[in-house]
Amino acid sequence: MNLKTVGYVKSPYKEKREAPHQGRNKDKVFKIELLENYKKAVEGLDKHKHLIVLYWQDKAKRDVVFSKTVHGGEPKGIFSTRSPNRPNPIALNIVDLISINDGVLTVKKMDALDGSPVIDIKPYIKELDCAE
Amino acid sequence: MNLKTVGYVKSPYKEKREAPHQGRNKDKVFKIELLENYKKAVEGLDKHKHLIVLYWQDKAKRDVVFSKTVHGGEPKGIFSTRSPNRPNPIALNIVDLISINDGVLTVKKMDALDGSPVIDIKPYIKELDCAE
Repeated sequence: MNLKTVGYVKSPYKEKREAPHQGRNKDKVFKIELLENYKKAVEGLDKHKHLIVLYWQDKAKRDVVFSKTVHGGEPKGIFSTRSPNRPNPIALNIVDLISINDGVLTVKKMDALDGSPVIDIKPYIKELDCAE
Repeated sequence: MNLKTVGYVKSPYKEKREAPHQGRNKDKVFKIELLENYKKAVEGLDKHKHLIVLYWQDKAKRDVVFSKTVHGGEPKGIFSTRSPNRPNPIALNIVDLISINDGVLTVKKMDALDGSPVIDIKPYIKELDCAE
C-alpha cells in the first residue's frame, strides 16, 4: 500500500515547536497546492463549507505503540491518542474552505507543518462525519 | 510513503455489491482484528464512544480524477465525492465502539468489505472532528 502525494501544504508553521497540537481553534490561513495532475479532482468541491483533509506527518516516528502524550499522565496505547507518532502517521483535519483557485485551496483550521504531503481531500458531510 | 497494515476488518459484507454506500445509517456489527504487534496500541481507547477508523479500499481504482458517481448527475472531481476510487483509496468511518477484547474491537456503523486492511484508529473528539 503505497501512497501518492496529491499536493503539499503551505503552512505558517515551519517547525514542529511552532505548530499547535490541534488547529481547530486557531485562525491561521493555509494553502493546499495540488500537483498539476490532480487540479481537476477538486471540481465541484467549492460547494462545500468544510473539508476533510488527510496529510502525511513525515516527521513522525512510526514505531511507537504505547507512549505518554504531550498532555501528560500515564502512558497509553497510541490509537487512543491523536499523537502524530503512530504506525501510519496520517493526520486528519476538518478544515474550513475559503476558496479554490487553479488547484490551490485556501483553508483555515489546519495544524500541518509547511511542506506536508497531502494524500486525500473529501467533502465533509455532517450526517456521516459528525457522531451525535 | 508506505502504509503498514495494523489489522483487518471482519465484515458482514463479502462483496462490493452487498456493501452500502455509507455505513452510518445501518446497524450491522463489525470486528476489527488487530495484528499481534498492535494489540497494546488500543489500551485506553475503551473510554471513547466513537472512533475514527481509516481503512484501505483495496478493490478501488487509483487512476480516477474526474468521474460520475453512483448518485448520478454530471461528472465531478473525485475529491468532491466520497467514491472509493481515488488516488489514495483511504476510507474514513466514524464508528460506534461496542467493546474491545484482546485486540479485537467490536464496532457498528462501518461500511468496509470483509478483509479490508485497517491502517489507523483514532479517538473521535467532537470539538475537533465535528464542524459546527
